[in-house]
Amino acid sequence: MAESRATATWTRRHLLGLGGLRSGELRALLTATRTYAEQGGRSDDRPLEGRTVTNLFFEDSTRTRASFTLAARRLGADVIEFSSVGSSLSKGETPADMARVIESMGVDALVIRDKWAGSPACLARAVSCSVINAGDGSHEHPTQGILDLYTLAEDKGRLDGFDLSGLRVAIVGDLASSRVARSDAWGLNLLGAEVVLVGPKLLVPDSYRGFGGGCEVARDFDAVLPTLDAVIMLRIQFERGSGAALGTAREYRSAYGLTEDRAALMKDEAVVMHPGPMNRGVEIDGSVADGERSLVLRQVAVGVSARMAVLSACTGAARLS
Amino acid sequence: MAESRATATWTRRHLLGLGGLRSGELRALLTATRTYAEQGGRSDDRPLEGRTVTNLFFEDSTRTRASFTLAARRLGADVIEFSSVGSSLSKGETPADMARVIESMGVDALVIRDKWAGSPACLARAVSCSVINAGDGSHEHPTQGILDLYTLAEDKGRLDGFDLSGLRVAIVGDLASSRVARSDAWGLNLLGAEVVLVGPKLLVPDSYRGFGGGCEVARDFDAVLPTLDAVIMLRIQFERGSGAALGTAREYRSAYGLTEDRAALMKDEAVVMHPGPMNRGVEIDGSVADGERSLVLRQVAVGVSARMAVLSACTGAARLS
Amino acid sequence: MAESRATATWTRRHLLGLGGLRSGELRALLTATRTYAEQGGRSDDRPLEGRTVTNLFFEDSTRTRASFTLAARRLGADVIEFSSVGSSLSKGETPADMARVIESMGVDALVIRDKWAGSPACLARAVSCSVINAGDGSHEHPTQGILDLYTLAEDKGRLDGFDLSGLRVAIVGDLASSRVARSDAWGLNLLGAEVVLVGPKLLVPDSYRGFGGGCEVARDFDAVLPTLDAVIMLRIQFERGSGAALGTAREYRSAYGLTEDRAALMKDEAVVMHPGPMNRGVEIDGSVADGERSLVLRQVAVGVSARMAVLSACTGAARLS
Repeated sequence: MAESRATATWTRRHLLGLGGLRSGELRALLTATRTYAEQGGRSDDRPLEGRTVTNLFFEDSTRTRASFTLAARRLGADVIEFSSVGSSLSKGETPADMARVIESMGVDALVIRDKWAGSPACLARAVSCSVINAGDGSHEHPTQGILDLYTLAEDKGRLDGFDLSGLRVAIVGDLASSRVARSDAWGLNLLGAEVVLVGPKLLVPDSYRGFGGGCEVARDFDAVLPTLDAVIMLRIQFERGSGAALGTAREYRSAYGLTEDRAALMKDEAVVMHPGPMNRGVEIDGSVADGERSLVLRQVAVGVSARMAVLSACTGAARLS
Repeated sequence: MAESRATATWTRRHLLGLGGLRSGELRALLTATRTYAEQGGRSDDRPLEGRTVTNLFFEDSTRTRASFTLAARRLGADVIEFSSVGSSLSKGETPADMARVIESMGVDALVIRDKWAGSPACLARAVSCSVINAGDGSHEHPTQGILDLYTLAEDKGRLDGFDLSGLRVAIVGDLASSRVARSDAWGLNLLGAEVVLVGPKLLVPDSYRGFGGGCEVARDFDAVLPTLDAVIMLRIQFERGSGAALGTAREYRSAYGLTEDRAALMKDEAVVMHPGPMNRGVEIDGSVADGERSLVLRQVAVGVSARMAVLSACTGAARLS
Repeated sequence: MAESRATATWTRRHLLGLGGLRSGELRALLTATRTYAEQGGRSDDRPLEGRTVTNLFFEDSTRTRASFTLAARRLGADVIEFSSVGSSLSKGETPADMARVIESMGVDALVIRDKWAGSPACLARAVSCSVINAGDGSHEHPTQGILDLYTLAEDKGRLDGFDLSGLRVAIVGDLASSRVARSDAWGLNLLGAEVVLVGPKLLVPDSYRGFGGGCEVARDFDAVLPTLDAVIMLRIQFERGSGAALGTAREYRSAYGLTEDRAALMKDEAVVMHPGPMNRGVEIDGSVADGERSLVLRQVAVGVSARMAVLSACTGAARLS
């Protein structure tokens, strides 16, 4: 594959987070995403033909894993699944040993999800193949960040240069436990957007003004809504116990849910995003999720292209170094 | 791929059941099955190259899933596995949302198994890709029906036109909870065979005379056996509690098991089928399952070809519409 | 693919163990391993293109399954996964029926792992496709044996002819429950090496002098160490209860662990192997596992080539017969 101009500025072997990237690096990944998205999430050539990508998901996620698997296959790679269930870890092997063993089989990229923040960075030091963070604790989920940024840029006609300046974007809900929010905030800041974090104090402490490189913090969703160009609604993770801090689902919806009434307060051209899976009727009404403002399914579609871009850029960099 | 004449009459995007098909449609799928079966369950070309098939099995079935996977791969498609364990459904996502998300990743066909009758039909309304029913509750299992019909037609020399008139076929056992029986009965009726349902009242109520478009109901297996050209033995699903209605396995075998003695009552050329997995020594004796009359392993082999035919026909129709 | 001279002497359809092979047969598999290893665990042609390999793992093993999967894919084969969880076996089907069903779908090789010794041999009698033993109880794990022999021969410059005479190799630890040890011992004996089994009486009874075709038995690891060219350290399988016979991990380490101090007693050019997963700090110190003598990661890398050799040789033999 001829190295595309877009990824010429990308020289990292790993993608561990959007925090710490230079804006040119992020733009290189977004430009590569555009190349694949314009082909409908496909690739004319197969740059990873004969290469192997391993999914190493210590925490399950059907949709993210499927998206990475499709991305890898569409680039021509073989995909090997490792799951924590019944794996060697239950026999006392360390994660670093496991990663080195997988690499020794001739693997070019490890796609890692773990409940421990920092786990991908830790494994990246143990191996010389590429490590892609597919979500680590409440730290980062960088490919979700890239697909969110791309989807927003596409809707706003900012695909040339990915300059998001002048746009005001809210991230709403459980910021404290959201790795998606952290990646989104770093990325939005890098591309010049204004970021507002919205939620009650327990989920969005005042100290979050430093979140993702600097954000505004707001408590009154209704007051902020008319000023926004996009709203990223976060999933309330009842299964992680975040419900306890929030009172009932009904109470949460009444203060921070994107209801049909609330959506009517938004600017005409403002859009709605959600990383999924959605709790319809809690953080977002079904009619809003399925409505004209919603980019939810476009996010999913772009996700495959974003992961193709990341896999291709990181393994390309690994080969050059 | 040149559209084959056989599937030219197939214009549906989904295969949800054999009930409701026109006989020309069923024959189109059987003719396409023949094309693949004649190549030993392979394909000379790869009509689904670059396409993606997703297995969405909310109820596990190793053999059906493997058969669909092989079918899809031999047509050149990529296969992505979704399982219910640990999936987004446990996070409160609706099945329709999940199906739309999968489709958004660029999926061409969803192969669905669910314990709820009607679930595939429901998802088919949510997406625009093909939906193939791989078994829904006690409703239908249409690809099993197609492979059963093909296997019978092949043995009886009826591969030209798939006319089964003059043949008398019994389906024996737990009709009440059998999706296989429903698909078989619809298909046998469409192709002109006579269908006899055999079992005790609890499993085959008198009202089943309307089953699958019209059947005879019989209680005395021994009396019916000498009149049959084929017997389809159903699995007693002890794991679903159907045992309770049947007394002990020994009692069931004595009244409705296809024992070696009972098989001796059959016409010389009459054949035995079973959708598997078999309870040897309960509904069928091991010597009968392995004997000359048995088409059990041929059914499995034909299954891959039948699923190739269905995947190819439905995704072809989806592309044309 | 032109039949290579190396595997011309291999005429078996199955690989059930190294015990009972002729040395020419073992050398044929090792020579084929060399061909793939010299290409970095890849294949220039794809001799199994259009063929299907099935992993049938009744006992889980992420790394062995991944190694076989990579091997099969790099030869061009499709791989279908069968796992025992939720499989037909829970519905009362016999393993032989399951194997015949899988074969009927058009499968060329069954890779089987089971906790029952002899299970692969049993299934091999039920089917006509190739059966590869991926570990059965405490009987054999022949592909691990092949990769161990190859790794040792490579390090010692014995890749021409695979003559290991003059080398003295210890296998240390839980010999009683180790299938790896049995395959290693048979293979080392066939290639002319001297084998010493080291461990306490409970794990290495005196009667083990007949183990793998004839071995020396020793109790004092320190006394044996300076005489060795290689040490194969076995995993203490605490999860199988072998800990009970061993006292604490600390006691075991003090008598039979390959500690840093103990490793210093070895000849300069002596090497250390371990089938993994390792219990660092129990049977082997981390510094030894990661040290210059260690061939541990090379074993993993060679594993893919060894499995390519076995899959290719056995399916080739099946086609000729």
